[in-house]
Amino acid sequence: MNIKNVKGTKDFYPEDKEVMNWIADTMRKVALNYGFLEVESPAFENLSLLCDEEAEETKSQIFVLEKRSNEQLGLRFDLTVPLARMFVAKQRELPKPVKWFCISRMWRYEAPQKGRLREFYQNSIECYGSNKPESDAEIVSMAIDTMLELGLKKMDFEVVINNRDLLQGFLEGLGIGKIEEIIVIIDKIKKIPQSEFIAELEKAGLSQVQIRKIDEFMKIKDLDKIDESKLNDRAKKGLNNLKQVMSLLEDKEDFIKLSLSTARGLAYYTGTVFEFFDRQGKYRSLFGGGRYDNMVRQFGGQDCPVTGIAMGFETLRLFLDEKMLLPDTELGVDYYIAPLNKDLIKEAVKIASKLRQNYKVNIDLMGRSLGKQMDFANKISAKNVIVIGENEIKSGKVKIKNMMSGEEQEVSLEELQ
Amino acid sequence: MNIKNVKGTKDFYPEDKEVMNWIADTMRKVALNYGFLEVESPAFENLSLLCDEEAEETKSQIFVLEKRSNEQLGLRFDLTVPLARMFVAKQRELPKPVKWFCISRMWRYEAPQKGRLREFYQNSIECYGSNKPESDAEIVSMAIDTMLELGLKKMDFEVVINNRDLLQGFLEGLGIGKIEEIIVIIDKIKKIPQSEFIAELEKAGLSQVQIRKIDEFMKIKDLDKIDESKLNDRAKKGLNNLKQVMSLLEDKEDFIKLSLSTARGLAYYTGTVFEFFDRQGKYRSLFGGGRYDNMVRQFGGQDCPVTGIAMGFETLRLFLDEKMLLPDTELGVDYYIAPLNKDLIKEAVKIASKLRQNYKVNIDLMGRSLGKQMDFANKISAKNVIVIGENEIKSGKVKIKNMMSGEEQEVSLEELQ
Repeated sequence: MNIKNVKGTKDFYPEDKEVMNWIADTMRKVALNYGFLEVESPAFENLSLLCDEEAEETKSQIFVLEKRSNEQLGLRFDLTVPLARMFVAKQRELPKPVKWFCISRMWRYEAPQKGRLREFYQNSIECYGSNKPESDAEIVSMAIDTMLELGLKKMDFEVVINNRDLLQGFLEGLGIGKIEEIIVIIDKIKKIPQSEFIAELEKAGLSQVQIRKIDEFMKIKDLDKIDESKLNDRAKKGLNNLKQVMSLLEDKEDFIKLSLSTARGLAYYTGTVFEFFDRQGKYRSLFGGGRYDNMVRQFGGQDCPVTGIAMGFETLRLFLDEKMLLPDTELGVDYYIAPLNKDLIKEAVKIASKLRQNYKVNIDLMGRSLGKQMDFANKISAKNVIVIGENEIKSGKVKIKNMMSGEEQEVSLEELQ
Repeated sequence: MNIKNVKGTKDFYPEDKEVMNWIADTMRKVALNYGFLEVESPAFENLSLLCDEEAEETKSQIFVLEKRSNEQLGLRFDLTVPLARMFVAKQRELPKPVKWFCISRMWRYEAPQKGRLREFYQNSIECYGSNKPESDAEIVSMAIDTMLELGLKKMDFEVVINNRDLLQGFLEGLGIGKIEEIIVIIDKIKKIPQSEFIAELEKAGLSQVQIRKIDEFMKIKDLDKIDESKLNDRAKKGLNNLKQVMSLLEDKEDFIKLSLSTARGLAYYTGTVFEFFDRQGKYRSLFGGGRYDNMVRQFGGQDCPVTGIAMGFETLRLFLDEKMLLPDTELGVDYYIAPLNKDLIKEAVKIASKLRQNYKVNIDLMGRSLGKQMDFANKISAKNVIVIGENEIKSGKVKIKNMMSGEEQEVSLEELQ
């Protein structure tokens, strides 16, 4: 029998679970205040929903369940896909926009020796039905407010933002054919040295003029510096959209940085893309999102624009820990009730019952001596101890001992609540 | 592509998710007040932890993942097993008793045509380290308080309680050999007619005397009516333990019923067993639990007594629904902000931002006319609407329209919070 947890998974003991609950509760509060509603999808889906038969690489990252009764199932690897399925199922009846979030876990297959997480938590937030910059701006704004609510400050993080139409249209305008290949290189611009970046573009067959123009363009820090007259229609559309999104985020401009190279890989994004980074650059990327207007149609729905973000817990938790923003755990009970002997247990249980209406209360379950009970109360960080002896029951008065200060306070049993 | 959810799973749309959150939050509150700490285990475990190689029947109920890199994994089918594993990993360092709960989901394989749930939620509560009746009584008491906190009343449900040692010792005392087989029959006594019960015992080879004695014993409703002098040591130990548990539960005696036939199947229980039922008998069993003192050792730990209960959500939710105790969903936002035209969006966003500090707020993301916005606000059950026009911005005053009463209240933008 293998009594270890599976590699790449984590056991959440009380301290860790409390931290996860705090992150989730904080995210939930902000999402609800932005008018998003919470949903949840099953852990597994029909495999054909998660990947194409032929998409070997995607499939290799999915935990697939053993086939039975002709059912081929896989564990969800994100929340965006199952939520899109749920949206499609009710697309006609739901008033648009539909604003959902889901805080839950998902699974990606990694070989056991890699030591990477195979089970992880995300808050996935989706807005279905609006093709307006307002919805892009709202998602970014909500994510920023979530970070602030978690205790992070302006000096801690920033959001880089771009538009896929602007990037793609610009490259088309340069007469570049292999757009996807070039986008992958451009997306890396901040992660590799300038010389390597140029070399990769050369290797991809771009001319020196094209490379210079790309390099100049990517360095632009202000949308007003872009010469609109030189852009094709697609790039103009993207630029215009990006300007509107930025303008709607004026209140949060201190967090926002234009990044004309950001593409977020070759994933499903069609318009706005954005990515959250720590300003010190310790983490590759905290999380990101954008607009994916083709997804709903892909899952058999009617054409429907979508903007979303997936806020992963793991890097965020490390970041919050580094910034000393994780809350102190509050695992200690408010009261520990210590009966002096066996005959007093029933009286002690009554007192515990009463206090449990409003407080966290533990009571001796081991038939221990008072000394051992005090040891235990200390170990579990009980805040107060109430010793129940015959005198206390007779007099109807108990002493509450504060375990931090050592102070004792006498209270009548009736007052205790 | 199969865009339906997998059979036996459920999509939780906002209304359903809110109900599940309410049940979970209520359970969490009571468990915390009883001094239990929340933990979470991964969704999958090494298959060898979940079942023996040879245990074909158990294995057939597990969702097994496709084998890769010599790893054979399965989805957890309960929380008791993974939590026992987590306990064993820290058994030495943790002060006893260790009191944990986990509210999460698990999976059991059922053939797709059966239409039974394959993904379900439970609150699993475990107390490790106490062999005293106090811990059995505390678990039962906590579960009763959970039911009360959910709004159920004395008239709605009851707890039947028994002790496996008492039952087994009694049968041993009758000279019965095939105890397990007989226990399975006795466990069914309330579900089958008396004649069938007798017939099954006869078929199992019991004598008429044995059957009469079993029948008489099972009908006893009061522990004091049991003739202790006729019991063997094991039965005496069980009786004594059961008396203590019942005595500790005196405060809740209206909920408790002795049931000398209850065994909870052939599962791992070793002492106290209990089961929650609706008094009308509409549901087979709501949930149950008991003492299983051999489990920790089975998972490679040191000998350690455990009492636990697993409160499933599904039957409970049906029961609460039938009793009209599920809360009204509160999905409507507190405010819907309606800008009269495009030029006012930024002002409207500012007002929404301010209100989102304390309220749930939606704002137009579709560039809609006022009429359409009011329609939408109605559809999503917004409680109040604030229309933002040029006059409102100029005067610094807005009208808050209560969508239930239709009343309007004028408030200055500064006061709005």
